[in-house]
Amino acid sequence: MTASRETDLIARIARRAGLPAGRHAVLGIGDDCAIVRPRGAVEDWLFTTDLLLEDVHFRRSTHSPADLGHKTLARGLSDIAAMGGKPLFCLLSLAVSPALPQRWIDAFYTGFLKLASRHQMPLLGGDLARADKIACDVVVCGSAPRGAALLRSGARPGDRIYVSGRLGGSAYGLACARGAAWRRHLRPEPRVALGLYLRARASAAMDLSDGLSLDLWRLCQASGVSATLDTAPVFPGATLAQALHGGEDYELLFTVPPGRRIPSAFQDVPLTRIGAIGGGPPAVITFRGQPLPPGGYDHFATPRGGASLA
Amino acid sequence: MTASRETDLIARIARRAGLPAGRHAVLGIGDDCAIVRPRGAVEDWLFTTDLLLEDVHFRRSTHSPADLGHKTLARGLSDIAAMGGKPLFCLLSLAVSPALPQRWIDAFYTGFLKLASRHQMPLLGGDLARADKIACDVVVCGSAPRGAALLRSGARPGDRIYVSGRLGGSAYGLACARGAAWRRHLRPEPRVALGLYLRARASAAMDLSDGLSLDLWRLCQASGVSATLDTAPVFPGATLAQALHGGEDYELLFTVPPGRRIPSAFQDVPLTRIGAIGGGPPAVITFRGQPLPPGGYDHFATPRGGASLA
Repeated sequence: MTASRETDLIARIARRAGLPAGRHAVLGIGDDCAIVRPRGAVEDWLFTTDLLLEDVHFRRSTHSPADLGHKTLARGLSDIAAMGGKPLFCLLSLAVSPALPQRWIDAFYTGFLKLASRHQMPLLGGDLARADKIACDVVVCGSAPRGAALLRSGARPGDRIYVSGRLGGSAYGLACARGAAWRRHLRPEPRVALGLYLRARASAAMDLSDGLSLDLWRLCQASGVSATLDTAPVFPGATLAQALHGGEDYELLFTVPPGRRIPSAFQDVPLTRIGAIGGGPPAVITFRGQPLPPGGYDHFATPRGGASLA
Repeated sequence: MTASRETDLIARIARRAGLPAGRHAVLGIGDDCAIVRPRGAVEDWLFTTDLLLEDVHFRRSTHSPADLGHKTLARGLSDIAAMGGKPLFCLLSLAVSPALPQRWIDAFYTGFLKLASRHQMPLLGGDLARADKIACDVVVCGSAPRGAALLRSGARPGDRIYVSGRLGGSAYGLACARGAAWRRHLRPEPRVALGLYLRARASAAMDLSDGLSLDLWRLCQASGVSATLDTAPVFPGATLAQALHGGEDYELLFTVPPGRRIPSAFQDVPLTRIGAIGGGPPAVITFRGQPLPPGGYDHFATPRGGASLA
């Protein structure tokens, strides 16, 4: 199973990293963000890091520097959105070749800072280095009221399963390199406002970075539940396989307790009920009655991608 | 001047990143760490990120995975030490080749977590990715009482200038690849306890990552002062040039107001008075009466290294 080596590796690191006891830690390795509680503070703080590497996650020939700056921050913001966090600030480590012109670096920061500004989030620092290939690692900090952050582990049997937007657009865009799907691949839109809206409504949430089948499998693993899917909203032009397994959509996957109403759209983003959480063997997922194995990207089994430790 | 392109680049990013107004930010780009103040919290929090890249900052053939894990965290901890911070927690983004054996990854985490454990600091999360070359980006968070963090900008004319330890060991070790100097290069020791001790005593501090001449130049720039040096403690076997310009010693450079006593050693680490801060044109530095240009690593002018944005 493709997901196994990566999952094993993360579990192994989490075991060795030790319980995040004391020193303000609330939640360590294994969710979209780590959660810490500053002494005396009124809120929890959420932290995520996301590494984006040239020729692993993107090619310089297809991503403009402004697209890349946007995407670097969007990936981190999406993790904050997945936990219902409000963005606070960010840091950025960037390695670029000295051969890249100043206007490339300027355009990168233009894309990055434009998205940061839309979320009223200052860039407070980071690191600069020289390397043959571009490497970007973003740190995003967000906040949530104490104990209110949405976790992957909160899904319960009977909860309904939802996704935002339409799936497979990024994978289809990567394949066709044109139109709305290509723009979706280059400029994913983190669902920050939706995450805040869901904080008091959803029982569990995560962002779709590695594909619905793999990410839902992770959510079910974390919650100790199974899932039954009967539909998936497909991005115009994408295939059902792209919608089920394609990565980098950065939509939200969330579960809602029975009886709690969810509208059909939030700020023009459709919200689709795709199935239900069940008991039974954990992390067994079916789609229209057939087993749905976690078929998204496994970064230690396929030639691209990455995996979040927190 | 070698330091100019990097300094210009950082200043340019800092201008564009905007003032870190609101949202808890106290200090943005330009010091060893960013400083933020969680709402209601009793302490300030310090954040630093440090990027370590294969064939830029190290070679796999000379650094064992445990050395590399240690060094990755030591660089971030050194920034916390430079501000007088107490380590709280860390996150790690790591890219490795799938061809690296599991025991390589285990040994990396052994080196990393051993140092983290000595500072009672949990690893709370991060990111994992696959790449041909190893990339490590560490985020370290520390705390300091409100407004008490040591800045680069606090040096005043008349202050005395000190360094901890002996300088040039890492550069000499890189050249000779043996003995105590080589161990210093592979396993730098962040001066966390010394930083805490200096918090109530020093007027300014920073860590020596890029060499005394360049780092003192940065401190003088930030404080708007000049400096006169008359000595430098040289690591056994190193040359004076290595002590003045060699990077990666991770000792502390700090200034002390006149009349405030500093012992000749702290926990067996020698503390040496090397000169005095003056007024006059900012960032003009002399060593034994001769001009000392900032000759350390400039990461956009030399084939190795990196530069801290915060």
